[in-house]
Amino acid sequence: MARQKPRIVMKFGGTSMAGIERIRNVAQRVLREAEAGNEVLVVVSAMAGETDRLVQLCREAAALHDSKEYDVVVASGEQVTAGLLAMTLQNMGAKARSFMGWQLVKASGVHGNARVDAVESALLDEALSGGTVAVIPGFQGVSDEGRLATLGRGGSDTSAVAIAAGLKADRCDIYTDVDGVYTTDPRIVPKARKLDAITFEEMLELAGVGAKVLQPRSVGLAMRENLPLRVLSAFEDVPGTRVVAELSGADMERNQIAGIAADRNEARLTLTNIADRPGTVAAVLSPLAEAGIGFDMVVHAATPSAESSDLTFTVPRSSLSQAQSVIEARKEEIGYGELLTDDGVAKVSIVGVGIRSNPQLAAKMFETLAEQRINLLAISTSEIKVSALVAEADIELAVRVLHTAFGLDSEKAA
Amino acid sequence: MARQKPRIVMKFGGTSMAGIERIRNVAQRVLREAEAGNEVLVVVSAMAGETDRLVQLCREAAALHDSKEYDVVVASGEQVTAGLLAMTLQNMGAKARSFMGWQLVKASGVHGNARVDAVESALLDEALSGGTVAVIPGFQGVSDEGRLATLGRGGSDTSAVAIAAGLKADRCDIYTDVDGVYTTDPRIVPKARKLDAITFEEMLELAGVGAKVLQPRSVGLAMRENLPLRVLSAFEDVPGTRVVAELSGADMERNQIAGIAADRNEARLTLTNIADRPGTVAAVLSPLAEAGIGFDMVVHAATPSAESSDLTFTVPRSSLSQAQSVIEARKEEIGYGELLTDDGVAKVSIVGVGIRSNPQLAAKMFETLAEQRINLLAISTSEIKVSALVAEADIELAVRVLHTAFGLDSEKAA
Repeated sequence: MARQKPRIVMKFGGTSMAGIERIRNVAQRVLREAEAGNEVLVVVSAMAGETDRLVQLCREAAALHDSKEYDVVVASGEQVTAGLLAMTLQNMGAKARSFMGWQLVKASGVHGNARVDAVESALLDEALSGGTVAVIPGFQGVSDEGRLATLGRGGSDTSAVAIAAGLKADRCDIYTDVDGVYTTDPRIVPKARKLDAITFEEMLELAGVGAKVLQPRSVGLAMRENLPLRVLSAFEDVPGTRVVAELSGADMERNQIAGIAADRNEARLTLTNIADRPGTVAAVLSPLAEAGIGFDMVVHAATPSAESSDLTFTVPRSSLSQAQSVIEARKEEIGYGELLTDDGVAKVSIVGVGIRSNPQLAAKMFETLAEQRINLLAISTSEIKVSALVAEADIELAVRVLHTAFGLDSEKAA
Repeated sequence: MARQKPRIVMKFGGTSMAGIERIRNVAQRVLREAEAGNEVLVVVSAMAGETDRLVQLCREAAALHDSKEYDVVVASGEQVTAGLLAMTLQNMGAKARSFMGWQLVKASGVHGNARVDAVESALLDEALSGGTVAVIPGFQGVSDEGRLATLGRGGSDTSAVAIAAGLKADRCDIYTDVDGVYTTDPRIVPKARKLDAITFEEMLELAGVGAKVLQPRSVGLAMRENLPLRVLSAFEDVPGTRVVAELSGADMERNQIAGIAADRNEARLTLTNIADRPGTVAAVLSPLAEAGIGFDMVVHAATPSAESSDLTFTVPRSSLSQAQSVIEARKEEIGYGELLTDDGVAKVSIVGVGIRSNPQLAAKMFETLAEQRINLLAISTSEIKVSALVAEADIELAVRVLHTAFGLDSEKAA
């Protein structure tokens, strides 16, 4: 690209677009980026509450409604905020205009849950390189048939990333009602610290286990496109968290562990005395997968001295009774003694790119939990994550002691 | 056209679209027309109050706003009702879908006040001939540049007529919160009667002098396209008023006078002692026209015995002080004695195609007013209208006695 200026995409959520005063605040932030010498494209959500209002109207109109008509109704919320932000920017002296999703965002897939296929960039390139701020309604595009299509609830993050990728933007900034990504849930650990930087993989692992700052789909897309993100507060003028492919420079100094995640949506199943022969584990887990039940933390350590052993794994707590039925219906086929269940469990995880190269981090996690006499019911490890299943009663203690042990506590907060 | 079925356009205003219950009522009326064997296209307004809400948001965002962005914001109201009506019709078992203005209504002219240039009928023809009810948001289209363009407030009547003309519809039905066109304002004359039929010309004259049932622009367009209209109640299931090019059959039996109109928005100006030479009247009225002030009821009867005379005319009451300034600034150029003004006047008119062929109708009007000792300050006549300027205090009496004299009183109402 022969562009003179950096090109950035800024995305603002519904809370930051709720009312003209807040839209004016958003416009000021946008102006600042434009005046700093960037080409700026803004992706906006509907005003907070507006999409819910429109969805409710659809439900009242027809319990089962045509998703194409649903899209026509709900897409209007972002259309309104896009027009309002463009005129607010103009009123502050900027060159700005809105572009509708149907003018340039090609979407495909299921109506109401479509994905961005392509962005017609010629029109946008012309506007951006001429110094115009482009404002685009998030969450929508145009289908192959030429009809309005929405991307599914919360899809504005993903459309911002897709638009940024399509325009070969240098960065995509997601403005939200939190000011960044934290080392853990500050409601559990008041000393949780905001991270300056985090990798895409770490972000996905943290999101997967409960840190819901960005839509996982948008993070996955940014990772594939190698598009740096930033998570920033829409309300406070403080540095946020960069989400990047690899840590470099000063970020390398960061702790090897990025954060501690806790997930209470866990239940444990144990099948006792299963036969030690090939195919037994598959006979249990395949029917669950077919039923759409995800499983995790599979522990099956056969000992050479025994002819049978136990199989333990976890499922989402909300799927426990369904998983029980699936297994009990196949008791003879599988061959097991008893089916034991426990929904009083939770999962604590350490997440960090350092784990890959340093096995001592996992050891340190287990030692730290052992010192507190926290019993480990199951363990699973991946390249950048180590998880332990513990009694739910122990989860907050586990998070706190790990947060301290891995040097994540903030020095200032109490 | 080789169409099998009659094709009709139905237009519903904001009051009839205000909430899901009312939209359901609209859907039932639409279904009835479809089941009666018609091809049906529906043009909808935004829910009552919604356009005002959106306009207010624009005003708050920027006192002087870009009309292209204004269009993006306010066009959303009709988009919502179009989607909701389409899904409601589907829920009742009908084939239905919405088409957005940007998909098929080409508009040109000023943003915020555009006019319909063309309707891309291929897509609609296919849907309608296949038995699908088409729902289109009123009041909007797409500009030459491919941007949303609105037709100006109240433009849904006009877009319904333009779409009906573009599709060569057999009829356009305007559903509104009154149940038809009346012989006069029922608030003045409780015995006012609903007309079965009225001609386009009569409708324009009645609209121009205060009977605001249809946008005059939509009536003018229907007249040029020779497209029959009907005005109907959206709430009551009663016959409305047909608006047609010429009365025929039973309608011919109708009174020669269609209705009596009253207009209080009048002010009279008199210039005394103006010179009786060519160009004096133009010297007064041309500057008014240039200033955008409409004038009416010009009376300038020079008598052979005098060298000077008076010039009297009316302007809208709201323009009176502006008109005074324009004239006083040109006092020397025009040459007159005094400028007298009176804003305590009003205009009463009889409207009917019968006037064209029967000069006795005008005579009867003057006699009727004279019997009541109502003084006539000025008179103007056209092919289908006779107007008299009277003191504002006399206007209600004038309307009542003329309504009775021309046989318009209803027999049933009190």
